[in-house]
Amino acid sequence: MLDGRWAPGHLNELSAQECWDLLATHEVGRVGFCDGRGAVMLPVNYTVHDRSVLFRTSPDGLLGQHLRWGYAAFEVDEFDDYTQSGWSVLVRGPSRAADPGELPETDEARPVPWAAGDRSLVLRVTPDQVTGRRVMPS
Amino acid sequence: MLDGRWAPGHLNELSAQECWDLLATHEVGRVGFCDGRGAVMLPVNYTVHDRSVLFRTSPDGLLGQHLRWGYAAFEVDEFDDYTQSGWSVLVRGPSRAADPGELPETDEARPVPWAAGDRSLVLRVTPDQVTGRRVMPS
Repeated sequence: MLDGRWAPGHLNELSAQECWDLLATHEVGRVGFCDGRGAVMLPVNYTVHDRSVLFRTSPDGLLGQHLRWGYAAFEVDEFDDYTQSGWSVLVRGPSRAADPGELPETDEARPVPWAAGDRSLVLRVTPDQVTGRRVMPS
Repeated sequence: MLDGRWAPGHLNELSAQECWDLLATHEVGRVGFCDGRGAVMLPVNYTVHDRSVLFRTSPDGLLGQHLRWGYAAFEVDEFDDYTQSGWSVLVRGPSRAADPGELPETDEARPVPWAAGDRSLVLRVTPDQVTGRRVMPS
């Protein structure tokens, strides 16, 4: 039955399960952290594992410096310019260097960066908050 | 001539002009700010005006509270899962409520949110940093 939640342009909150289902459909998300001035956001390739988000980065890079032991935001979204609709999911939580013994067993479940270079540090974000929203087609 | 910068997976830095050109091609980006715990990232519809980024939000929402007078990050990107390539642009700078007299004159140059609701506050991010990267197809 149509109600206000399906009205054009209405912003629906997603359930945690919907958020996890959507996170599993993508390969690229954006990691956010705070430096002395404000937020920084950088795209990464990721996988979802045990209700956490895994990505690889350089031990010496910005993400490695701030998120080997830090607090991360992670965002994935998809939008359609034509119907002016889409969804976004935001994950927030502590970020730590992943224990090699706790990584997924299969290669395809492990994150593989598109970008070349030394990206030997695997970081795991374990969410304490998972939220998402969907904007309905107008 | 082919050199290392065009190698598969190589990460090229973009010039500021390239960043602005790419920003002008999209309608949705992600605004980031820091709350007491860490970064928050939320998608918005935006336009580029006078080398600044404009978007509309609710005066009472999270973005309105933090960025009426704050420091913002703004990210736009585009990726192709098949060729494993793409680009991202990150803008950082002070965010202020835009002066109505300084908004673009034409409607199409003003940001129009897809999401319904009161989004009467126009925020302007004036970058003090514009950076971008492109990862070459693998």
